[in-house]
Amino acid sequence: MRYLFLLLFLFVTQVVSAADPLPSWNDGPAKDAILNFVKCATNDGCPLYVPPKDRIAVFDNDGTLWSEQPAYFQLLFALDRVKALADQHPEWKNEQPFKAILENDLKTAAASGKDGLLKIMAVTHSGMTTDEFEKTVRDWIRTARHPQKNVPYTQLVFEPMREVLNYLRENGFKTYIVSGGGVDFMRVWAEDVYGIPPEQVIGSSIKVKLAKRAGKPVLERLAEIDFIDDKEGKPVGIHRFIGRAPVMAFGNSDGDLQMLQWTDRKPNTFKALVHHTDAKREYAYDRNSHIGQLDKALDEGTEKGWTVIDMRKDWNRIYPTP
Amino acid sequence: MRYLFLLLFLFVTQVVSAADPLPSWNDGPAKDAILNFVKCATNDGCPLYVPPKDRIAVFDNDGTLWSEQPAYFQLLFALDRVKALADQHPEWKNEQPFKAILENDLKTAAASGKDGLLKIMAVTHSGMTTDEFEKTVRDWIRTARHPQKNVPYTQLVFEPMREVLNYLRENGFKTYIVSGGGVDFMRVWAEDVYGIPPEQVIGSSIKVKLAKRAGKPVLERLAEIDFIDDKEGKPVGIHRFIGRAPVMAFGNSDGDLQMLQWTDRKPNTFKALVHHTDAKREYAYDRNSHIGQLDKALDEGTEKGWTVIDMRKDWNRIYPTP
Ligand SMILES: [Ca+2]
Ligand SMILES: [Ca+2]
Repeated sequence: MRYLFLLLFLFVTQVVSAADPLPSWNDGPAKDAILNFVKCATNDGCPLYVPPKDRIAVFDNDGTLWSEQPAYFQLLFALDRVKALADQHPEWKNEQPFKAILENDLKTAAASGKDGLLKIMAVTHSGMTTDEFEKTVRDWIRTARHPQKNVPYTQLVFEPMREVLNYLRENGFKTYIVSGGGVDFMRVWAEDVYGIPPEQVIGSSIKVKLAKRAGKPVLERLAEIDFIDDKEGKPVGIHRFIGRAPVMAFGNSDGDLQMLQWTDRKPNTFKALVHHTDAKREYAYDRNSHIGQLDKALDEGTEKGWTVIDMRKDWNRIYPTP
Repeated sequence: MRYLFLLLFLFVTQVVSAADPLPSWNDGPAKDAILNFVKCATNDGCPLYVPPKDRIAVFDNDGTLWSEQPAYFQLLFALDRVKALADQHPEWKNEQPFKAILENDLKTAAASGKDGLLKIMAVTHSGMTTDEFEKTVRDWIRTARHPQKNVPYTQLVFEPMREVLNYLRENGFKTYIVSGGGVDFMRVWAEDVYGIPPEQVIGSSIKVKLAKRAGKPVLERLAEIDFIDDKEGKPVGIHRFIGRAPVMAFGNSDGDLQMLQWTDRKPNTFKALVHHTDAKREYAYDRNSHIGQLDKALDEGTEKGWTVIDMRKDWNRIYPTP
């Protein structure tokens, strides 16, 4: 009887200690690759051991940690802001691309190209203090809903990737976002949603200027680009903000290729691509998509043996339970 | 007898638990202010309690964490580099400010002004990869000696401030450098010397560009200023790199005034100035110094009740034991 208890106890202990840190992942090469890399990185008897201070993992955001269709969510935020600000700008009724946005004619709005986009970004992302912008994003992320899925945007984060973030942090990794998106947009909600604090969010930025309002210092957001954290900007951003090379990198598009190559400079590093293959539960797109195009990076990743995560096959669920 | 042991035990326990975290500090208002702020910030029954995620402390470097006389140490590094590179540049024998530097005529070199300084910085801080620059700094900091004190520069860090850094980290603070000095210069040795990892060093920077050498990606350092992390640049740097406001800030000159004012925006924050008053053990200078001028910030700090650290009175030692 005593033996039976002991055996039962050992069994329970083993089950508990072997609890799956990635329950939303199906068994397969992608899950194995992540688990094996981390097991070895944290075992100082292993040839791939990584000392704690070098455990830096970087993640693209749009399409890697949350969805990005039918348009980058930050652009959808900007369009919502144009509508919210329209009352204060009667002239927009006759001015493109604002007229088209207010008429929900996104095709015409898109036809205004890069110039139109810069106009939209200028009125929605600059001309206020950093405090005011933060409050606007905070209100939006709490109340806005995705146009197709009709849920809050924070419901469209990838639960399997949140498990990876947690699993890495539990194993002593510092997790960073390295995104082409706006850093001040992401920092507002990244801590709540991903557990990533503001100081570990790297992104594109506009210039800010110190000024005074009512005798107190403020930072004013200017309509001038400071830094584009995309493509060749990603290694630059990693160097500038982290100052050392990552040992793990996750992306989903050609915009991440340079970040993955930069991580690949070091031996024994982990590189992964999230491949959007699930038209039913999320979206399916790659080589010909106008958002999150995955073409060159897919070829190079396949050739070099980087981990390609097949969303349809590898993930048994996409989004968190509401 | 048993009681005696018990009393002795209690006594020893109390002495140990009350071990002074700042032994290089003399008792006085500066030491009290630091200890009292941290005790309250970490006690959630205290009105000045600071939740762990907001425990951000920022430190200027030159003159706050290490000495800065007779010139910023990074400038002394640049002068050493000019001498080391002179063989490859025979033309420098006839070109200012290089000629003067090679002849140890620093007065003439200084007369070349900002243009001269930019020339010196261009040849010593750009035109190489980030890896190469890092190696150069690493070799220099290991071998170079201060021209007056004749010790390695890393011996000229302020032991009392290292105690503050440790004490804060033991109490859950994230410690950051926010310096006008070059970020890539400081990151090489800040972790060894201050326990501050590269990703928590904020400083001035030049532009870098992604390129390939022997088929591998590298970052090339360009002779173009990217960001000046001084004066009004310090709140900008804090916003850009940390994305939230500090609750403690330490500086030593008017270049830190905006950082201290920025920290002062929040109620219940701690602001301090290191005042160089010790001509015997270090250097004495303030309102009229060409390096680390402390004038307006001293007036404003005194008026607003910020902590002014009097090096001569408050510190029982300046530098670490070799
Ligand atoms: Ca992406
Ligand atoms: Ca200083």
